[in-house]
Amino acid sequence: MRNIKLTIQYDGTRYSGWQSQKNSVAVQDVMEKALSGLLGEKVKLIGASRTDANVHAAGQVANFRTGSRLSLLNIKNGLNRRLPKDIVVLRAAMAKEAFHAQYDAKSKIYRYRVYAGNPVPPFFKDFVARTSYELDTEIMSEEAKALLGRHDFISFQGANSPRKETIRSIKSIRVKKRGKLIEFHIEADGFLYNMARAIVGTLIDIGRGHMQRGSVKEILAKRERRFAGATAPAKGLCLMKVGY
Amino acid sequence: MRNIKLTIQYDGTRYSGWQSQKNSVAVQDVMEKALSGLLGEKVKLIGASRTDANVHAAGQVANFRTGSRLSLLNIKNGLNRRLPKDIVVLRAAMAKEAFHAQYDAKSKIYRYRVYAGNPVPPFFKDFVARTSYELDTEIMSEEAKALLGRHDFISFQGANSPRKETIRSIKSIRVKKRGKLIEFHIEADGFLYNMARAIVGTLIDIGRGHMQRGSVKEILAKRERRFAGATAPAKGLCLMKVGY
Repeated sequence: MRNIKLTIQYDGTRYSGWQSQKNSVAVQDVMEKALSGLLGEKVKLIGASRTDANVHAAGQVANFRTGSRLSLLNIKNGLNRRLPKDIVVLRAAMAKEAFHAQYDAKSKIYRYRVYAGNPVPPFFKDFVARTSYELDTEIMSEEAKALLGRHDFISFQGANSPRKETIRSIKSIRVKKRGKLIEFHIEADGFLYNMARAIVGTLIDIGRGHMQRGSVKEILAKRERRFAGATAPAKGLCLMKVGY
Repeated sequence: MRNIKLTIQYDGTRYSGWQSQKNSVAVQDVMEKALSGLLGEKVKLIGASRTDANVHAAGQVANFRTGSRLSLLNIKNGLNRRLPKDIVVLRAAMAKEAFHAQYDAKSKIYRYRVYAGNPVPPFFKDFVARTSYELDTEIMSEEAKALLGRHDFISFQGANSPRKETIRSIKSIRVKKRGKLIEFHIEADGFLYNMARAIVGTLIDIGRGHMQRGSVKEILAKRERRFAGATAPAKGLCLMKVGY
């Protein structure tokens, strides 16, 4: 049996997220069907990150085990031929026998895009959240620094499927302004459920003057979700990279 | 009656083009319906450019006459509230009484995007044409220069709805490479039917070595469509700007 690692991109608009669920179509379902059709055997994919509905990926990683001897290039090309155009395999590579895309992940980078203007250009409609407020990106950058390093991020954890272990390390966090588009890049050793979106929602509340300077530090200290800002909409989020 | 000028963006994927046709939904139809609903009167829109099905616009211009006294800001915002998210009004402005979006256009800029790689990132799927060939953008830039200035572009005119007057002036044409994405920007005083796409298709044929250096000059001189390259797919094309 070979253990094969795939690097995957998708536009999450049409899917209920990465992970298979009842009564909906997840990216995992579509990929497993394409893999099974290609390899002539039932295949179980393990994804690094359970992205939510409408969340996108530019660098999702998944692995699967197969008895097939099809070459890596033929696996990649065969999958891309079978997959709809909103899911794409960038690379297929051999992994060590024990490699596990989820458990072995050492870091993840998410990007979040907000369009601070009205209307949103139609080309961005599925890929940005919109705000009608002007955002002060300098204050946002400044506040974001308080998130750097090792903290208990329980205040930024969504209500569903909470983790008991809520300590994470944010390695870098950047806020960039490109015209009306504001981009957040967050790298951490791991993310709690909805953590990236709760961080962005909080920074937006600060950037528009709804929360004060110093809020991030306070929210971390209070260790309760209700002190943080809103969870920013899913469609602005994109999983950029998984590090091993 | 006021004459009002709109600047419009759209993702052309779901539409049969700008102009109303039988048995299909054009951007013009959707906009006229939104305008009529907003203003409470039948409205006829005049578009600068008849973009084809799947062609996009970042700066289409259209005008209409109305007896309504609704402010320009309320027209813009009211339309954006009624329009689907793939059509957006950027600006509504007063125009002179005689202004005609199509006849008064002095120049147009089109952009064309080709992705020279496999697979196409899912985020680009509706906005680029794909080629599996490596393209030599230096030769393409060099050849494009032969198109500059005033020429008879009949060799680059599509078969449908031909114009008798086929002399046009190309003011600038640029070929840029950004990673695997190759972008063409073409500015002319006007474009014949499918002219931008026939030019791009020809430059691609040259860039991949299928046509020789010097071909563009020869094709212009031969004054027959069959000597030029293929018409590049519609979805890579975007109307960027209309000048008056």
